[in-house]
Amino acid sequence: MDLEEHVESTEELYNGVIIKVERQQVRLPNGDSASREIVRHAGAVGILALTADNKMILERQWRAPIAAATLEIPAGKLDQRDADNVEHAVIRELNEEIRYQPGQLKRITGFYSSVGFSDEYMTLFLATDLKPVTTELPRDQGENLELLTVTKEEAQAMIDSGEINDAKTITAIYYWLLQK
Amino acid sequence: MDLEEHVESTEELYNGVIIKVERQQVRLPNGDSASREIVRHAGAVGILALTADNKMILERQWRAPIAAATLEIPAGKLDQRDADNVEHAVIRELNEEIRYQPGQLKRITGFYSSVGFSDEYMTLFLATDLKPVTTELPRDQGENLELLTVTKEEAQAMIDSGEINDAKTITAIYYWLLQK
Repeated sequence: MDLEEHVESTEELYNGVIIKVERQQVRLPNGDSASREIVRHAGAVGILALTADNKMILERQWRAPIAAATLEIPAGKLDQRDADNVEHAVIRELNEEIRYQPGQLKRITGFYSSVGFSDEYMTLFLATDLKPVTTELPRDQGENLELLTVTKEEAQAMIDSGEINDAKTITAIYYWLLQK
Repeated sequence: MDLEEHVESTEELYNGVIIKVERQQVRLPNGDSASREIVRHAGAVGILALTADNKMILERQWRAPIAAATLEIPAGKLDQRDADNVEHAVIRELNEEIRYQPGQLKRITGFYSSVGFSDEYMTLFLATDLKPVTTELPRDQGENLELLTVTKEEAQAMIDSGEINDAKTITAIYYWLLQK
């Protein structure tokens, strides 16, 4: 089956700090026209950071889109310095957010967060053998974090109760639960 | 730690079909001001639909944000008819997309897809005991789908190869792999 849609025109609706929004007119395989709304994003990394006693590090932070605090794994957006090296972003975010540097870093998987309307792609890493950083990088403006560590069983219970309700964090915990 | 940000003003930037985009000025706990970009979305459902021989149903479809086809579990947006009943959306999407109705439906979990900039919340369901529908609902305009079924082992291999790179689909497969 021919699935490809051909872009006939693109209109930029908003060019912001974190996102760009555009609307495309596309031609469908059957010749009809349709409109597509797209949110462009630079991409991101998320990190399952495990301590020596096999606990995961979580961050509680305020999230404006839902006007509430969430519990999430460390994560952050890519910037121009990371173009050729996603692990650079991982090391920076772990420094900024949890003040550790990873002795071991492994790519778990990668995914489009919400591909129906956005091109945001997140690479998920496993960070172990954590050591305190010697030089602390400044946090982003307005980045207020509360850190906590939880066991596998606690993490599972926090998904079940709804206390953890962030997609990348649930994916990271499921991955962790799959490891023997 | 006080994490709450107080909204001082909200500016609507775009009011579209699938998304609304706004920018908030917020006051941080320390008194500073910051700007937040927010993409509002009605919410969605995703469905791990398993056949009698324990294969999952996947859809190949074109995704404009990445100008490529993806492999995803059945999913769809909530609309006004679903306000009080998310399962209504599940049954509709399974009919529209794969032409089955579920004998058993179970909520797996729920999550914000990309809470850094969006309020999209997806509820993930497990659908089993599938029966062909008697009345086929019309598909959305421009919804061209190719259906396939894969085993657990095939699904795992498709994540490892990158052929499956959709967040909700990877989460659903990890959940499936966790079941005995």
